[in-house]
Amino acid sequence: MKVCRKANFNAAHRLYRPDWSDEKNNEVFGKCNNYNFHGHNYKLEVWIDGPIDPETGYVIDLKILKGIIKEEVIERFDHRNLNIDCPEFKNLIPTAEHISMVCYNLLRAKLDSKYDLSIKLWETENNVVVYEGV
Amino acid sequence: MKVCRKANFNAAHRLYRPDWSDEKNNEVFGKCNNYNFHGHNYKLEVWIDGPIDPETGYVIDLKILKGIIKEEVIERFDHRNLNIDCPEFKNLIPTAEHISMVCYNLLRAKLDSKYDLSIKLWETENNVVVYEGV
Amino acid sequence: MKVCRKANFNAAHRLYRPDWSDEKNNEVFGKCNNYNFHGHNYKLEVWIDGPIDPETGYVIDLKILKGIIKEEVIERFDHRNLNIDCPEFKNLIPTAEHISMVCYNLLRAKLDSKYDLSIKLWETENNVVVYEGV
Amino acid sequence: MKVCRKANFNAAHRLYRPDWSDEKNNEVFGKCNNYNFHGHNYKLEVWIDGPIDPETGYVIDLKILKGIIKEEVIERFDHRNLNIDCPEFKNLIPTAEHISMVCYNLLRAKLDSKYDLSIKLWETENNVVVYEGV
Amino acid sequence: MKVCRKANFNAAHRLYRPDWSDEKNNEVFGKCNNYNFHGHNYKLEVWIDGPIDPETGYVIDLKILKGIIKEEVIERFDHRNLNIDCPEFKNLIPTAEHISMVCYNLLRAKLDSKYDLSIKLWETENNVVVYEGV
Amino acid sequence: MKVCRKANFNAAHRLYRPDWSDEKNNEVFGKCNNYNFHGHNYKLEVWIDGPIDPETGYVIDLKILKGIIKEEVIERFDHRNLNIDCPEFKNLIPTAEHISMVCYNLLRAKLDSKYDLSIKLWETENNVVVYEGV
Repeated sequence: MKVCRKANFNAAHRLYRPDWSDEKNNEVFGKCNNYNFHGHNYKLEVWIDGPIDPETGYVIDLKILKGIIKEEVIERFDHRNLNIDCPEFKNLIPTAEHISMVCYNLLRAKLDSKYDLSIKLWETENNVVVYEGV
Repeated sequence: MKVCRKANFNAAHRLYRPDWSDEKNNEVFGKCNNYNFHGHNYKLEVWIDGPIDPETGYVIDLKILKGIIKEEVIERFDHRNLNIDCPEFKNLIPTAEHISMVCYNLLRAKLDSKYDLSIKLWETENNVVVYEGV
Repeated sequence: MKVCRKANFNAAHRLYRPDWSDEKNNEVFGKCNNYNFHGHNYKLEVWIDGPIDPETGYVIDLKILKGIIKEEVIERFDHRNLNIDCPEFKNLIPTAEHISMVCYNLLRAKLDSKYDLSIKLWETENNVVVYEGV
Repeated sequence: MKVCRKANFNAAHRLYRPDWSDEKNNEVFGKCNNYNFHGHNYKLEVWIDGPIDPETGYVIDLKILKGIIKEEVIERFDHRNLNIDCPEFKNLIPTAEHISMVCYNLLRAKLDSKYDLSIKLWETENNVVVYEGV
Repeated sequence: MKVCRKANFNAAHRLYRPDWSDEKNNEVFGKCNNYNFHGHNYKLEVWIDGPIDPETGYVIDLKILKGIIKEEVIERFDHRNLNIDCPEFKNLIPTAEHISMVCYNLLRAKLDSKYDLSIKLWETENNVVVYEGV
Repeated sequence: MKVCRKANFNAAHRLYRPDWSDEKNNEVFGKCNNYNFHGHNYKLEVWIDGPIDPETGYVIDLKILKGIIKEEVIERFDHRNLNIDCPEFKNLIPTAEHISMVCYNLLRAKLDSKYDLSIKLWETENNVVVYEGV
């Protein structure tokens, strides 16, 4: 049985590698390399896979999961500049792939090992990633 | 190949255990334990996994699946109080997890064994469950 | 300039008139007259029409509007039975039309008279009402 | 890690078998057998599963994937009559199942073998198919 | 007080004028002029503006409105070719503007004159029209 | 008759007044005052009100409107930092209200005076503004 809780955060970011020339960064990252950043409304789906607790009929209390997501993800990334304000992306390009991986790791550390976790992250209405761990 | 048909039903419910005190019920189920019920617009996705019929190009005729969903799920739960009107939840807390499990069992009994079945149920825009059987 | 803030509440209700026979209630309100209630995820859009404050560039601070909506509407109706728990509907059938009117009056009383107010309420994905006062 | 790019195309189609009588076609395909065609706004999700490129932080550059989808799917099917204009459906009934299979094959041929591919196709808001290859 | 009921229909169409050359038709209507038609999932919102009936708390019973929409619009246009199957468009180019106008006239004839009517029609997710009569 | 074309742009911004103290900026603009910016996926609806052209059945050719929106709005603001990259907001706080007003003025200048124009701008799923000119 899988259950999902959704959340949103709004952040600025820029995709580039400091060890590449401007030409190379523009060629690979295009307008996502805008020097002064751009931003997105990220939509996050946190999926938990586990057994139903026979006492409550819940896989996990979604109010509790909502609190963990708020503390670990939303308060960290919402209304922030991922490149400058967030040490998680100091040496990691904040692509949707990497952001979902970071969210996965932050949430994985707070969840009982009996649960499997997967992350779905919408960067725009047309671009989505899913990460389920390694 | 998987195919999906969606449907909706609107129902009242209350989450609580009669063998627990009010304090315990409030602690675990919070406002979902409101004594006089509350309600939701449930959105249901019924997913069928099976081979394509080479004659029709269909996995299953979705008009037929729509009819089965209507008869087995919608007419049973739509505009009902799950706790009082529906014997399926007489001894089963009507969490989204349990509702999806009941829908799965009702539909599984009407579908050819060549099909795999899974159920996705949205209780709210932010809370979703998926059940694929055991 | 109009600005809108959205919110959601989940509630149970029943449409009927105690002064009508069961037959008349069923004829007019159909399955919405289910004796033990049913429920909905109501989506609310609160629209404010007014001048832009030249100091802030806001018509109204939506954080403040969000707080007013929470206090006046969400805490009053969310996870409640509108017929039983809410005195506003003691003598008023809780149709979407009446719910939007009640929300309008509750919010109107808390908003500066320089603002025009209108309420859009989604009872289901297919049924919507708009109320703009008299 | 899975990434998805969405696209849309609007097309006319008709479901029928020329080797069946009108009665049989109507019985099986119902109003989808309308002689003069009907149409849909198809929504396509193209999902790519593969490793993250450590240089870019991308599984695949979605701008490049967008271009492949445009060339292989959108320019072929958008604003077309699938039965008449598209040789892919000369001998294949254009059900959602078959359309997703054709899209899969067209895209599979243009993608590096290190990627797994799956196709999600919405024919209407209520009817969806997923094809992941054989 | 305004109330809305939504509905959907899926149809094929082609935009062109028989009194224009192919070049002129292509120049003005572009790919919408595809000779063998294309199609859309049209989403229709029917908005009724009128007083609340003090007996029922309804502006209009949306079950009744749903029936009128089904009879007047859905059964006429769903799974049809607007240009060939529908006499309403024999001498009228089936643009979204004209379709909404035809829906307006069909529904206006069935509604009490105490109601104002307006039609919102989505041809695609990005193209919408609203018609409120003359 | 009103017609609408939708578009999207993704941008970074920060709400603050340089003539206010940090305390005042934080008090009024809260986390929207984050020093290093945050960002949004803005959704834009451009509504044109005008007569139907009897020749084409269009109020305005939406392909042409799409081009104007692209040139005037998307290429100017997409993947940009509104505060730094866009002179329009050099002396104007980039609230949703002001952004919609700037879009209105840019588009108004390119549209025939026979059309009325209005702008609907979604900053997030829950915050929306509408501007119809003065």
